[in-house]
Amino acid sequence: MIVTVEQAALSSAMRQAVRIVQRHSTIPILSHVLVTATTGALEITATDLDARLTVTIEAETAVNGQRALPAGQLAAIAAAAAAGSQIRIEAGADDGRARLGAGRAKWAMATLPGEDFPAWGREDEAKAASFRIEAPRFLQLINHSAFAVSTEETRYYLNGSYLHVGETDGERRLLAVATDGHRLAIARTDLPDGAGEMPGVIVARQTMAALQGLIDATGNALEIRVSAAAIAVEQGDWRLVSKLIDGAFPDYQRVVPSGDEPIARLDAPALRAALGRVRPLAEASKTGSPVKIEIGASPAEGGDDRPVARISARGAGGEASDELAIDWAGGEPVEFGVNVRYLESFLARVGDGEVGLQVINPGSPVRLHVDGEMIGVVMPMRV
Amino acid sequence: MIVTVEQAALSSAMRQAVRIVQRHSTIPILSHVLVTATTGALEITATDLDARLTVTIEAETAVNGQRALPAGQLAAIAAAAAAGSQIRIEAGADDGRARLGAGRAKWAMATLPGEDFPAWGREDEAKAASFRIEAPRFLQLINHSAFAVSTEETRYYLNGSYLHVGETDGERRLLAVATDGHRLAIARTDLPDGAGEMPGVIVARQTMAALQGLIDATGNALEIRVSAAAIAVEQGDWRLVSKLIDGAFPDYQRVVPSGDEPIARLDAPALRAALGRVRPLAEASKTGSPVKIEIGASPAEGGDDRPVARISARGAGGEASDELAIDWAGGEPVEFGVNVRYLESFLARVGDGEVGLQVINPGSPVRLHVDGEMIGVVMPMRV
Repeated sequence: MIVTVEQAALSSAMRQAVRIVQRHSTIPILSHVLVTATTGALEITATDLDARLTVTIEAETAVNGQRALPAGQLAAIAAAAAAGSQIRIEAGADDGRARLGAGRAKWAMATLPGEDFPAWGREDEAKAASFRIEAPRFLQLINHSAFAVSTEETRYYLNGSYLHVGETDGERRLLAVATDGHRLAIARTDLPDGAGEMPGVIVARQTMAALQGLIDATGNALEIRVSAAAIAVEQGDWRLVSKLIDGAFPDYQRVVPSGDEPIARLDAPALRAALGRVRPLAEASKTGSPVKIEIGASPAEGGDDRPVARISARGAGGEASDELAIDWAGGEPVEFGVNVRYLESFLARVGDGEVGLQVINPGSPVRLHVDGEMIGVVMPMRV
Repeated sequence: MIVTVEQAALSSAMRQAVRIVQRHSTIPILSHVLVTATTGALEITATDLDARLTVTIEAETAVNGQRALPAGQLAAIAAAAAAGSQIRIEAGADDGRARLGAGRAKWAMATLPGEDFPAWGREDEAKAASFRIEAPRFLQLINHSAFAVSTEETRYYLNGSYLHVGETDGERRLLAVATDGHRLAIARTDLPDGAGEMPGVIVARQTMAALQGLIDATGNALEIRVSAAAIAVEQGDWRLVSKLIDGAFPDYQRVVPSGDEPIARLDAPALRAALGRVRPLAEASKTGSPVKIEIGASPAEGGDDRPVARISARGAGGEASDELAIDWAGGEPVEFGVNVRYLESFLARVGDGEVGLQVINPGSPVRLHVDGEMIGVVMPMRV
């Protein structure tokens, strides 16, 4: 293999590839990338045995060939080579070394045969459903569910987002649902053409993290193929194929409180600020702190008489409270307790918008509505 | 004590104070700040028993007083209170609690009596020398030496920068010297008026780190007082008094190679880039990697015939080399090995300038000249 590529292109491809590479694997080939030179193109492939990423860049190929090169070193070299330079890669000669050059800089390193690289990922792409979706919409499905994925390995079927087609508000939509038992996130978007026949699949946390890094929100629409065993996502010059979590996602609808309209609407930035103010005095634990929220309380003193939400917390060191104006349906005031950390994890995804709160009673889960694009459920906490 | 302050002023003062506060101290009072309200001013004091920081902000004081408040909570409250709001603090009533309010938010927390706060720091300010120095000049003395300070506690006298008056190039200057045994940094600046009588003192790493955070490079000149036991630094609304390390700094001049002019001058960014290029193939250890530098080598191939510096490294995985043009005094080519990490630690402070290299022979320390403001010494390494 003798091939010449642009520094920026190789560096960018290697930045993508190292997301998948297992740096500290006990299997030497997994710390390598498979480099394949064909006429006009260089293909970089990385795998961790669960996922396989291929990035294709333009190249001037003098001799076609394939060889596995150490991923960390190749990435570091590509990043450090002079900006704008051409990097020449020669590999597969008798001594099994790769020789690289860019400007006056030269590198030589040990390589492994291309045949040793795990071949998984090519066979598993049997189509079940295939669809196109704009990059920002799919990225949002990931971002609005990935944070709630469980990290507890005993319940492996919760270690991913449940990507499936479901009916909400009388319409079939594409949904991504994740839960860790304390909170549940439902991200939804309009059903893309062709996605209707998609099986419900659990996309692993690691795959979602890789996609968060790979997807260019301003780039081309994504080409997605989903079978019962694998998901393939493609955009521009990269393609990720990943195994799915083999398990049954629980019937999450059971924990989502029913009811039509939120009982109150709150300004998300104001609620975030109020939580930040009472938090310093809340009892602290590793997983978060309880705060009490009273919807429809009377203002403590002064100001107008409009009903407010009163946020309060108490701990060993003292207590704190704050109030914020709400858009309230009226009725009996309701108070409930939640873990501030879980509530904040939803608010962090809301941006500047409004959030609707639905509370049946103090002991039932709290439902949050965001824009029709996201529903959150937070378990109550005794305060 | 009843006092009202601006949110931004309190938040800024508390951000400064928490640099000194010991969050996880077994002595409860050390996780507090002493809050003192006098007519028109609120003083916040933090101490870790080695250093004492006082920040003074404007206040509307209704009742003078003094009380120790939990530092972490006060800092979090000040940061979270609404921007532009007035924060009212009331403390010292019968129940020993402090009550704070800002807008509709309220807080109550336990406090400790002001008398319990350690009084150290007031008595130790006996003057020995007192001088003014522009903030950027003193900050550079710190930045250009602090990185080389030893963290090895057995040689406690190396756990700080040796701030003293010394003669370099026939002129008396203010010097800050630090070493960890592998590298030595000498930062120097013109002698400020009044500093001539200053004793040589060792300023602890922690004190320098605090000063790096406290000093506003665009702010007022610093007022510095140095005695044999303590250093006091004052700028605008803050004043830090810190104990010094009680020990004798070694006679560092012995390890600085003599000789007049550097044998070669190299462009610092080009040298940094070349080191970055060979580093991926260098043998790696926790403390760094050896690289070989050949000064005055002939270019490997092509290009002009001007002598170059050739940077190279080899490890288990392979080898790498790069070359860069130099401004060379001529003579016999010299080659030597250094730890790339130590060399880079000096280059990181050079910015875009040139660096001069002085090498007596491959086994002797390497001397680096930067702008006349900094001298570095790096121990050689066998390659």
